[in-house]
Amino acid sequence: MDLQKPMNIAIIGAGNVAWHLAQALQAAGHNIIGVYSRTAGSRDALLEKLAHAKATTSLDLQHIAVDAVLIAVPDAALANVAAALKVAPGTLVAHTSGAMPLAALSPVTGAAIGVFYPLQTFSKAKAVSFQAVPLLLEAENPGTLKQLEELAASITQTVHKVDSVARKQLHLAAVFACNFTNHLLGISQELLYGAGLPPQSLDPLIKETVNKALEQHPFTVQTGPAIRHDENVIEAHLHMLEQQPRLHQLYTLLTQSIQGTQPDQ
Amino acid sequence: MDLQKPMNIAIIGAGNVAWHLAQALQAAGHNIIGVYSRTAGSRDALLEKLAHAKATTSLDLQHIAVDAVLIAVPDAALANVAAALKVAPGTLVAHTSGAMPLAALSPVTGAAIGVFYPLQTFSKAKAVSFQAVPLLLEAENPGTLKQLEELAASITQTVHKVDSVARKQLHLAAVFACNFTNHLLGISQELLYGAGLPPQSLDPLIKETVNKALEQHPFTVQTGPAIRHDENVIEAHLHMLEQQPRLHQLYTLLTQSIQGTQPDQ
Repeated sequence: MDLQKPMNIAIIGAGNVAWHLAQALQAAGHNIIGVYSRTAGSRDALLEKLAHAKATTSLDLQHIAVDAVLIAVPDAALANVAAALKVAPGTLVAHTSGAMPLAALSPVTGAAIGVFYPLQTFSKAKAVSFQAVPLLLEAENPGTLKQLEELAASITQTVHKVDSVARKQLHLAAVFACNFTNHLLGISQELLYGAGLPPQSLDPLIKETVNKALEQHPFTVQTGPAIRHDENVIEAHLHMLEQQPRLHQLYTLLTQSIQGTQPDQ
Repeated sequence: MDLQKPMNIAIIGAGNVAWHLAQALQAAGHNIIGVYSRTAGSRDALLEKLAHAKATTSLDLQHIAVDAVLIAVPDAALANVAAALKVAPGTLVAHTSGAMPLAALSPVTGAAIGVFYPLQTFSKAKAVSFQAVPLLLEAENPGTLKQLEELAASITQTVHKVDSVARKQLHLAAVFACNFTNHLLGISQELLYGAGLPPQSLDPLIKETVNKALEQHPFTVQTGPAIRHDENVIEAHLHMLEQQPRLHQLYTLLTQSIQGTQPDQ
């Protein structure tokens, strides 16, 4: 990667997103100068991974030579950070949230505000190649967008401009495709465990299901008792779930949803 | 693969499972002698893929030189097939269903009955390497099980002995992990479409989510607004789904389920 302009960057937050983002930016040649977090343990763990960064204990950054401030805090904490953050006029300030609008940063007086949303799921324990992570950008004005684009291009190959409305829709779609899907995979693990079956029993089936769903519209390749209207099997399954009312309810609703939303129904 | 005993095999059914199973068995050196199906079109399409097979128009196979009969019909049709099927004494007869018990074949007088369940999702349009498909076997007696094991070993590397009770649990777990998961991926596609976003937007995120869920227990790597109890985001999402009552209901129930079933709650 040919880095046009190494930036001095401050990171607010030390959770999963901050963890991966700060390291990817450093690897791309940027200078992470400080990390701010209310959680000292997380902050110090991240600082150990960064060559030149120091703990930042105040959100008043007006007198620090910083080009960009990236905010990677829980959505519920963003308003408080935006209210307290002070930067020199023209400093690039971007949040990294899929669900929050650009306007959440309006309280940061004088800043060039934007959104720098990495469309990926992160855990500290699992390395992520940022090159493959799409970055979704939004900014108040073209100049700020250009700065964000340069910053994004230094760490990933996929950059999209997406406004707040579309980003919110995308985030909702991601909750269904990822958060809810992960939960169903967890339920499945529990059912295997309950039956004394190895947790990996379904891995080939899960992989093939997802590969197929990524190649064609999932509704056109739906299989299983619901889409076949196989009432005997559905009744037997519901009977097996009688002692687990929430699973019983989920099974019923998902079966109804499959039977109601297929294009050919 | 070193094929010990090439078998003469009849296939009942010409759907997705029959399609892939018959071709895998032929490729392993077995002789598929006949295909029976009520759907002449599907049967003839499968026959075109098989070197020596002929259309079988009766389920009375007593006077045909057949070593094994594999039944790959919809679960709802299995009872009728079992009632009508006639074979010479000692002929191996197995069904391929995850949900049906071994005893579903008890009506087949004189047969050596078993279950030969490929734990994979099949579509005719998509090639499947049978070598990677686990085959779950069950039989009435050890001799029949041995025959099924040899047949299975000729087409796959993974063979498990699983009784009817555990197979039923496994099938239930698969409905959650695969059928329901596929449906959620479909809903996500529809939401992207509704927002004018490319259908591939979430592919990297989905892949990473599933990879992570296969490496660790999904409940321990759950992310998203539900597990964070991020009520602002949850309310905003539910507001976006107000015109789609079934999705609204699914979102609510899955969120409650995530908030209620995590190990640390």
